[in-house]
Amino acid sequence: MIIVMNPEATKEQLNMVIDKLTKVGLKVHLSEGSTRTIIGVIGDKRFVAELPIEAMDGVEKMVSVTVDYKLVSREFKQEDTIVDVAGVLIGGNHLAVMAGPCAVESREQLFQSAEIVKKCGAQFLRGGAYKPRTSPYAFQGLEVKGLEMLAEARAKTGLRIVTEVVDVESVPVVSAYADMLQIGSRNMQNFQLLKTVGKTNKPVLLKRGLSATINEWLNAAEYIMSEGNYNVVLCERGIRTYEEYTRNTLDLSAVAAVKNISHLPIIVDPSHGTGRWKLVSPMARAGIAAGADGLMIEVHPNPAEALSDGKQSLTPENFAITMQEVSNIGKIMGKVFI
Amino acid sequence: MIIVMNPEATKEQLNMVIDKLTKVGLKVHLSEGSTRTIIGVIGDKRFVAELPIEAMDGVEKMVSVTVDYKLVSREFKQEDTIVDVAGVLIGGNHLAVMAGPCAVESREQLFQSAEIVKKCGAQFLRGGAYKPRTSPYAFQGLEVKGLEMLAEARAKTGLRIVTEVVDVESVPVVSAYADMLQIGSRNMQNFQLLKTVGKTNKPVLLKRGLSATINEWLNAAEYIMSEGNYNVVLCERGIRTYEEYTRNTLDLSAVAAVKNISHLPIIVDPSHGTGRWKLVSPMARAGIAAGADGLMIEVHPNPAEALSDGKQSLTPENFAITMQEVSNIGKIMGKVFI
Amino acid sequence: MIIVMNPEATKEQLNMVIDKLTKVGLKVHLSEGSTRTIIGVIGDKRFVAELPIEAMDGVEKMVSVTVDYKLVSREFKQEDTIVDVAGVLIGGNHLAVMAGPCAVESREQLFQSAEIVKKCGAQFLRGGAYKPRTSPYAFQGLEVKGLEMLAEARAKTGLRIVTEVVDVESVPVVSAYADMLQIGSRNMQNFQLLKTVGKTNKPVLLKRGLSATINEWLNAAEYIMSEGNYNVVLCERGIRTYEEYTRNTLDLSAVAAVKNISHLPIIVDPSHGTGRWKLVSPMARAGIAAGADGLMIEVHPNPAEALSDGKQSLTPENFAITMQEVSNIGKIMGKVFI
Amino acid sequence: MIIVMNPEATKEQLNMVIDKLTKVGLKVHLSEGSTRTIIGVIGDKRFVAELPIEAMDGVEKMVSVTVDYKLVSREFKQEDTIVDVAGVLIGGNHLAVMAGPCAVESREQLFQSAEIVKKCGAQFLRGGAYKPRTSPYAFQGLEVKGLEMLAEARAKTGLRIVTEVVDVESVPVVSAYADMLQIGSRNMQNFQLLKTVGKTNKPVLLKRGLSATINEWLNAAEYIMSEGNYNVVLCERGIRTYEEYTRNTLDLSAVAAVKNISHLPIIVDPSHGTGRWKLVSPMARAGIAAGADGLMIEVHPNPAEALSDGKQSLTPENFAITMQEVSNIGKIMGKVFI
Repeated sequence: MIIVMNPEATKEQLNMVIDKLTKVGLKVHLSEGSTRTIIGVIGDKRFVAELPIEAMDGVEKMVSVTVDYKLVSREFKQEDTIVDVAGVLIGGNHLAVMAGPCAVESREQLFQSAEIVKKCGAQFLRGGAYKPRTSPYAFQGLEVKGLEMLAEARAKTGLRIVTEVVDVESVPVVSAYADMLQIGSRNMQNFQLLKTVGKTNKPVLLKRGLSATINEWLNAAEYIMSEGNYNVVLCERGIRTYEEYTRNTLDLSAVAAVKNISHLPIIVDPSHGTGRWKLVSPMARAGIAAGADGLMIEVHPNPAEALSDGKQSLTPENFAITMQEVSNIGKIMGKVFI
Repeated sequence: MIIVMNPEATKEQLNMVIDKLTKVGLKVHLSEGSTRTIIGVIGDKRFVAELPIEAMDGVEKMVSVTVDYKLVSREFKQEDTIVDVAGVLIGGNHLAVMAGPCAVESREQLFQSAEIVKKCGAQFLRGGAYKPRTSPYAFQGLEVKGLEMLAEARAKTGLRIVTEVVDVESVPVVSAYADMLQIGSRNMQNFQLLKTVGKTNKPVLLKRGLSATINEWLNAAEYIMSEGNYNVVLCERGIRTYEEYTRNTLDLSAVAAVKNISHLPIIVDPSHGTGRWKLVSPMARAGIAAGADGLMIEVHPNPAEALSDGKQSLTPENFAITMQEVSNIGKIMGKVFI
Repeated sequence: MIIVMNPEATKEQLNMVIDKLTKVGLKVHLSEGSTRTIIGVIGDKRFVAELPIEAMDGVEKMVSVTVDYKLVSREFKQEDTIVDVAGVLIGGNHLAVMAGPCAVESREQLFQSAEIVKKCGAQFLRGGAYKPRTSPYAFQGLEVKGLEMLAEARAKTGLRIVTEVVDVESVPVVSAYADMLQIGSRNMQNFQLLKTVGKTNKPVLLKRGLSATINEWLNAAEYIMSEGNYNVVLCERGIRTYEEYTRNTLDLSAVAAVKNISHLPIIVDPSHGTGRWKLVSPMARAGIAAGADGLMIEVHPNPAEALSDGKQSLTPENFAITMQEVSNIGKIMGKVFI
Repeated sequence: MIIVMNPEATKEQLNMVIDKLTKVGLKVHLSEGSTRTIIGVIGDKRFVAELPIEAMDGVEKMVSVTVDYKLVSREFKQEDTIVDVAGVLIGGNHLAVMAGPCAVESREQLFQSAEIVKKCGAQFLRGGAYKPRTSPYAFQGLEVKGLEMLAEARAKTGLRIVTEVVDVESVPVVSAYADMLQIGSRNMQNFQLLKTVGKTNKPVLLKRGLSATINEWLNAAEYIMSEGNYNVVLCERGIRTYEEYTRNTLDLSAVAAVKNISHLPIIVDPSHGTGRWKLVSPMARAGIAAGADGLMIEVHPNPAEALSDGKQSLTPENFAITMQEVSNIGKIMGKVFI
């Protein structure tokens, strides 16, 4: 942490800042420049964060030089984490694909989807039983019935189930049915929910918030891990920008960034990330080429009949083509479907 | 709702779209242009939203011409809503100010704050007992102890208490102490929480999400109102943009927009909105001049000692000046402190 | 300037950085922390900016603690600048309003507009003779004919003329007719154009770029001033965000920020800033309350007949009301129409 | 174009709108809904754009259903355009790489760079002779001397030269030396410059504006093409968002989008797009996987000595690795270096 004093700061003001820092056990190094003095603070950054330094007289600003999180960082753990989801591995040289309809709508729709997903080589069936929706009047999901159908589909196909948990209350029931708990974008900073899934032993798929910085996202993962659950997989799903052609702007540089900063696996959701099925396959390829460990893709036996997000869902034919393309890129990246 | 067909759409594709619409009871009007056909859909928009029209062959896009929400809209209720918070009114020709520290830190800090707030003419004491924080290692609030102190401060000063409720679990306990429940930015789309406060009889202060559109914000209010609680006050607190000088970009045009679209009262938080105490007073004045019904301002007896957000808190002296300035602007706008 | 070394940086890497800095005459102060070393650099920041420090081995990042510009800053000049535009003053306790149609369309339209503008007490007539348009097929302005009409309108009414100069070539001709040269948003970083108007003796109105930071905007003003023309007035006109209800997001906190950082006058354009005439009056009031020195407003004798931007233009009646409201707020702010 | 009337619009208001449209030769189709009437407009959209429909009484909004540009669109030209730059082809199954230093700094630096670029198989040498810089005090390029050095490097290596033209004045001199003219981000809507390069016979590389929509970008290309120069290559280089980890957010979905909408070739600049050399290689791979026709990459013989952008430049070693990786992805995409 660095504290930059005003050009007009007095000696007394400087001393008061130094006092405040040293009182809590921090050490300081001074750099006296031609126009201003800079204080380098040495010690646990969290202590500084708690102090109201920036409101003190004579202080211009405080600059952070280290990060907040610890458990998620590569400095904490050098080697890539590989998350085991009921026997299927995510991370390392494994390529994982989670596919299925946006929402579970009916047994028939789900089972048809599951068959397609299985046939094309993906390992996970996705499908929302609980759907967070902007309007209170929109379809909110089949809830427990949807969970039961997902479990049935697993029994039939052997696919692992990943599905969203939208609130603290439903963590137990979703955990009872799913192999992996998904935290959606809107809940990325629902800290109570993060802590709750952090206390389960289920692997967690943590989607990036609609306009979360990479730093906030990693801190959200830290919330989960700080409760003891280290099985976290990140999912880039597009951020909110001014661009209107796409539903969101898929930020693939976040994939490369996360690979540098953290040891956690990361996958990409090109369906929500673009909102247009024609862009799904190019962005799926690009995601893997950027270094992602897998994909989450919306597939529907008949997108034109989907109750939600039909516009961004792939047909079975296009999904098969996408899987082949992704597999080819994956091989070059040293990642394969197992 | 309007459906725009592709230039290459066939007659069969057009008929399939029309079929799908008429089957659920909607009516259609066709406009056949020189290059493409446009379908005007007549009937309840929600039915269309449920249909996967955009995924059908031949469809280029679907354009919404009406909005999702109903109860929050001025079309539903023409006259301004005035919310009664334990006898203090928000909306109409009333000017409401909620002030106090970011977080409740100690009995002394809170009581000193309350005295300042009271003395300067504000009607509400704000202060966080539960604090949602980006990092799991940051100060998370005094919780129930903080609530007790807030209630004590109310007993001493007669100020109304507004404080944040961060999860479903704590709604009962916060409701037991507070006069008004605040939903913070990060929870604006925590739908379970919205529904839960919608079932209480406490007035709700709904902050705009970090990067929520006005439309999403009003839909969040609709979630609360659709459960029966009509006492909702909106709070603009800045949106996330690329600008780095300010913590957020305070969007005062949202105040004017909300006044056009909705009957609900709206206040402005220039403290979080700018993140710099020097900008608080100008933006407080501007907010009232834009038509806001009140303000939420961070005040601290000694900002340099604050455990959080000291940088954006006003000193007692500056708060007194701000209140005077705001009062002057308020008079011109026909709004007074009562 | 502060240089933060990696935790793994070697002594040799540190020495190479120090060498590079001292060779160009800079001084360094070291802060050796528990995990990393920080170098405080003392001397002219521009020298550091030229050095590729961040690409050197062992360097994690470089943090700027001072700003790039000089002439625009309040540190350079304490007192408010007042710009004299052919006898009308902008800045200090003067309230300036520039009003008129988006584009000069015809003699009749312009003269009617000028009369309204004059009658309501504004001092400047605005109107585009050269129009930068997104599409090459849209109306691009009447050019020299438009300038002639503007000069005629000045002769009739005594209003000062402010109009946009869109390229280097037309600076002489626009300067021959106008009292003040406007640099539009799209040209805020057209550096050749900035330098060219910097060499004239005409006052310049510099609009903020569509997504320019305050820092970039002030640097653009510095380009003009560094050529010798100190008569620069800034104009906040909204920035690009994800919000779709308004055409842009009018950033009034930039007004307060500029007042802190710079001595230059600043006005607000609520017409382009919101894109909706219903929001113009509230945001005009708010702009003045935030501390702006004036306004730029689109007025049209008959908005429904306007060739461009009719949607955001005020009718004569609404402009008269707005001027009254603005005047009332101005008085409280100690600013009056002269 | 669709016009949506207010629910309260009168029959007279509707008729006035229809009148205005039919007078200029447009045809209308009415859809009378339960709450409002919608007018479908048939005919040349540009006529409608010129009319101030949205300011007319009774009109709620106008919705565009077709795009502004023509020459750039795939509807206008189905097959991919292949641009010939002095014998090197961009587009189709060709993979083009433009590499070199951000700025031409010295003969030695440039020639070393050119050798590396040539040796690794790229076909174009890039390097700025004119540098647009945020601050007037930053290094602005060697100008004509830089151009001469670029031409010398071409003579030595056979590489094609692509370099930026920053204003209308320098178009002739840059055209005399360069094989391809680059329009930088800040000039994407410098319409006079676009028209000027549109009148030359030099191929143009058009970078996306800092916060340009895809639609605005394609319209900028339309400006060039509407002057007769059809040899336009687009370059995605990152857009401005709230994310602070990367310098910009590289929007690879724009590559896939452009491929759908337009026939023009598109390349990706991962150096400016990310601002961090560690992210260049992953994003180069991802760009090609998304369907791009090539790359623009900053390479410097010694990034730590670069006068600008050293932080994002690749070393010769890393560039060689990147070229190999890109070549592997290119093969899968059916694109090869020729």
